Amino acid sequence: TLFESFCGGLVAPESDNNLWNYKFTWNPRNVVLAGQGGTAKFIQEGNYKYIPYNKIFSRTEFMDVKGYGRFEGYANRDSLKYRSVYGLDDVDTLYRGTLRRVGFSKAWNMLIELGMTDDAYIMEGSDKMSFRDFTNAFLPYHPSDSVELKLMHALKIDQDDIRWDKLVELDLFNPHKMVGLANATPAQILERILSEKWTLGPDDKDMIVMYHKFGYELNGEKKQIDATMVCLGDDQTYTAMAKTVGLPVAMAALSILNGKIKARGVQLPITKDVYLPILAELEDFGVVFHETEAAYMDYANIVFAT
Amino acid sequence: TLFESFCGGLVAPESDNNLWNYKFTWNPRNVVLAGQGGTAKFIQEGNYKYIPYNKIFSRTEFMDVKGYGRFEGYANRDSLKYRSVYGLDDVDTLYRGTLRRVGFSKAWNMLIELGMTDDAYIMEGSDKMSFRDFTNAFLPYHPSDSVELKLMHALKIDQDDIRWDKLVELDLFNPHKMVGLANATPAQILERILSEKWTLGPDDKDMIVMYHKFGYELNGEKKQIDATMVCLGDDQTYTAMAKTVGLPVAMAALSILNGKIKARGVQLPITKDVYLPILAELEDFGVVFHETEAAYMDYANIVFAT
Repeated sequence: TLFESFCGGLVAPESDNNLWNYKFTWNPRNVVLAGQGGTAKFIQEGNYKYIPYNKIFSRTEFMDVKGYGRFEGYANRDSLKYRSVYGLDDVDTLYRGTLRRVGFSKAWNMLIELGMTDDAYIMEGSDKMSFRDFTNAFLPYHPSDSVELKLMHALKIDQDDIRWDKLVELDLFNPHKMVGLANATPAQILERILSEKWTLGPDDKDMIVMYHKFGYELNGEKKQIDATMVCLGDDQTYTAMAKTVGLPVAMAALSILNGKIKARGVQLPITKDVYLPILAELEDFGVVFHETEAAYMDYANIVFAT
Repeated sequence: TLFESFCGGLVAPESDNNLWNYKFTWNPRNVVLAGQGGTAKFIQEGNYKYIPYNKIFSRTEFMDVKGYGRFEGYANRDSLKYRSVYGLDDVDTLYRGTLRRVGFSKAWNMLIELGMTDDAYIMEGSDKMSFRDFTNAFLPYHPSDSVELKLMHALKIDQDDIRWDKLVELDLFNPHKMVGLANATPAQILERILSEKWTLGPDDKDMIVMYHKFGYELNGEKKQIDATMVCLGDDQTYTAMAKTVGLPVAMAALSILNGKIKARGVQLPITKDVYLPILAELEDFGVVFHETEAAYMDYANIVFAT
């Protein structure tokens, strides 16, 4: 038996106009710190697996969503803590992850490798630091070698590697743009730099993508159902994030007021009487899951990007 | 002005018989956790530099010690906290590091990349785990691919890379050797595995190597003095570690008892009346620094291994 669950807050295809295919549609600080604070843990076919922070974004899995193309998923921190909550104590594979467009994770991993996502110390002189100074602080000193060449050498990438263009697009080598933050950590400075390029414009729309894989055995045969959901934002107010995060809470609140949900206290929405009516109501707002039968994922044909 | 200070507890050349050119001559747990718990910070020619944990062991500097060959130094955690203690508040370059034989750090970095040095979580089933199971826990599940191939692919190394032989030498792929530790962290298990190969034998001798670089300006000219010290252990009792760590403390204790050191309370040994007599006495035990004039290290000719 198997349960894999992926979710990503992304930018809608029509507003997708940077090389990272990503904009902030959720707390930017959480995006910068993603994967920190604990090793990723999960089970694959009964085997416990662990991925350290510096490898999370270089071990992704690809998924195709009809009409929307290919996505990649990186492992969330601790998939195992959901095992009992979901009633899946005997499951062979349990994996939760985050979706990005293909190539995002490999590029993000460069920022991690450089040390730019570190939130544990204050950088000296961050108030007078240019974007270029920031980048240079993670590279060895040299009286004449350029920051560009030192970075390419440190990360072992070539100038014709698309990851290089992604770094340039972020203006990481710009000596004129100033960080303008006093006593800031690398993560805070990186967030400031990213916000210049990854902030949603007034006409930009967001997109939520979910991909669930349910593996089970029926009459001795292994089967799998994949359920996918894509929700597009209408505008900056009625975002896909607001629809998928906010509407269920509003519906639950109404159900409590109307006496349909009788449970009291802090509850997880894991009982049918709670989630079935809400899922049905969400369909009116375009939050619909499409289920397809798939071959049981036995990992034999999968090569993980590393 | 410049001060770089490197020190390493190593194995004496006559007892140096493994591919890592290393054995435990100090608390093994500290060796496994080296570099963790904080970003490496230092100054190079007035520029603040930061190296994250996952890069510390891949950014080394080479040093030659006459009669003993080449060593490499990786950055210690926070060089800056010694700035005021040493009275070097205006120094341009301040860097403290740890010495290993060439190639150790690049190989050690593989263990870090895999996640084997993590001390923050307990691995499931560590009591019934073989060395091979341990290694496999950090690699993706696959029904038929070998642990060996998965590791080579994950670390992008070839079979004729000497780093591969170093992993094999540690028995990391052995399915018969058992970890035998209940509720253990990856770091604890790795320490257990390393102790099989890196424990000093009854006839093994250790070696302490120190390398200091002092850069200064005299009559407008930049100059540098390099001071090196190599201390060899006599046997398992009179180790180089005991001589260099234990003897100074014993000498200081005697000086206090004899009234030669008059300072009271907890003191750092940074005043001449304390350290000059002790350094002189240490020479009788073979702890001698050799000073040579060197060209001022301007980093122009240095390519850091990355």
